Amino acid sequence: MPVNILFAARPEQWKIYENPLKSALSEVGVTANLALDMAPDAVDYMVYAPDSAVQDFTPYTRLKAVLNLWAGVENIVGNQTLQVPLARMVDHGLTQGMVEWVTGHVLRHHLGMDAHITKQDGVWRKTIPPLAEDRPVTVLGLGVLGQACSKALSCLGFPVTGWGRRQRDVPGITCLSGDDGLRAALQSAEILVLLLPLTTETENLLNAERLALLPKGAMIVNPGRGPLIDDDALLGALDAGHIAHATLDVFRVEPLPPAHPYWAHPRVTVTPHIASETRPITAARVIIENVRRGEAGEPFLHLVDRSKGY
Amino acid sequence: MPVNILFAARPEQWKIYENPLKSALSEVGVTANLALDMAPDAVDYMVYAPDSAVQDFTPYTRLKAVLNLWAGVENIVGNQTLQVPLARMVDHGLTQGMVEWVTGHVLRHHLGMDAHITKQDGVWRKTIPPLAEDRPVTVLGLGVLGQACSKALSCLGFPVTGWGRRQRDVPGITCLSGDDGLRAALQSAEILVLLLPLTTETENLLNAERLALLPKGAMIVNPGRGPLIDDDALLGALDAGHIAHATLDVFRVEPLPPAHPYWAHPRVTVTPHIASETRPITAARVIIENVRRGEAGEPFLHLVDRSKGY
Repeated sequence: MPVNILFAARPEQWKIYENPLKSALSEVGVTANLALDMAPDAVDYMVYAPDSAVQDFTPYTRLKAVLNLWAGVENIVGNQTLQVPLARMVDHGLTQGMVEWVTGHVLRHHLGMDAHITKQDGVWRKTIPPLAEDRPVTVLGLGVLGQACSKALSCLGFPVTGWGRRQRDVPGITCLSGDDGLRAALQSAEILVLLLPLTTETENLLNAERLALLPKGAMIVNPGRGPLIDDDALLGALDAGHIAHATLDVFRVEPLPPAHPYWAHPRVTVTPHIASETRPITAARVIIENVRRGEAGEPFLHLVDRSKGY
Repeated sequence: MPVNILFAARPEQWKIYENPLKSALSEVGVTANLALDMAPDAVDYMVYAPDSAVQDFTPYTRLKAVLNLWAGVENIVGNQTLQVPLARMVDHGLTQGMVEWVTGHVLRHHLGMDAHITKQDGVWRKTIPPLAEDRPVTVLGLGVLGQACSKALSCLGFPVTGWGRRQRDVPGITCLSGDDGLRAALQSAEILVLLLPLTTETENLLNAERLALLPKGAMIVNPGRGPLIDDDALLGALDAGHIAHATLDVFRVEPLPPAHPYWAHPRVTVTPHIASETRPITAARVIIENVRRGEAGEPFLHLVDRSKGY
């Protein structure tokens, strides 16, 4: 009997994902009905984006799992009508894209590239940056993305401190946890990378008090979640010159409104949520691997722990 | 009997190197007279910069080796009065700094960072770059610096082709040599990194004909030597839009004169010869290690093969 898979995301996503999902099904040899619409009580698996019209899961009585197209689950994880396993998107392209974006922008700040990119005025300003080994970087968040970025930065020679809610052990990385750990992680960070999930505990984590813990001249790179930062506090720290620069890829409201002060601030670089973008071919394989596992009675990959919120 | 070491570089370099050299001597337990001036026939070793006043080595009858402070040796290698071993600078900081600069600028071009750095105009332009695995990079030159950069880029996921005068075998890198190899290496290069030594064979290597072999839209990064590029040919290829951007750290004349067209060209980024700068502490250790080896009868490190010119 074919498996019924509902594609519960915006119709424009269907155009992007229909063929990759069908290819991935054929690769693993699963026969399925894959559709934008079907009777709720017939649905076995739901490929889901949190901005989908489906917000009440009660009618989906046969549902075995919800397979999120996004890495972020904060808009679905608290949904009380969802009673089946929820898997988040952890795809190779997502992690790799994040590593490239984070490594690139950390090196940009480390090397002071902007001065050369923006000032081609004929003046030979020979300022030699320190070596990466003399530039401490802190990564907040040691999940899949945080660990991958930490390792890439460490491979390039940066001394990397990683901080997470629970204590981790990542080779080559100084791993910290807890409130004291957070304080130490911020105090040493010449470049700070935010890769925490968004939870009630992490919202506004980077507030005025914690920004003050960073060394003067520190640079911030946020490809994680917009609300991790108290925006007014960051603008204040940038205006005061305590923070030298912030490169922000994520915001409370996206697209970032043209009138937002971040756009015009000389010490802020806005990038349009491109650090980690799901590539359809790799993402479709991750989703369908979980369908295959469900049908074969194997454990699902990338399950969300809803008690923690991610 | 103490070893006599002449410091034959500009006096301002003496201020930078005197203490690191003395510390390095003390670390390896060699007793030496280290001075800016001494009788030529008393000199055992010469710490040398090619812009030194010493250009005739004939009076240095007791000289055991010339220890170059620079990585580049093109201004000394052809000196017929030099008859003793010549060692070039290969220091950890030099290689590491080059890896950081090259990786940073390759990622900058790969990610299209300049659009975000220079255009903060409130427009949310969501263009997702390909993954590194879909961005072929070619490194011309597989010496110490070229190999180190190739490995770092390969670790980040870029498919790297390396080309050198002689055939090499570097794990993870597609190694090519010879004229056919050069053609293939250029034809596949979306980003081209120049790390060749300057010899009569490599001068103007990147001429109009070879620039035309690069795919349309290719980007060039030159931290090697200025004369590797035919400047007029590059400007022509940039004006024609065949080459999308060139980031140049080295030039025929340095500092690059303010009137040079590279400064004003919208598709050129000039950086002031900072990609690989000798750091005094690490460089002093490399120099003194060769003194120690000479005194202990051990083979010198980093010897220049003068028949090849590097």
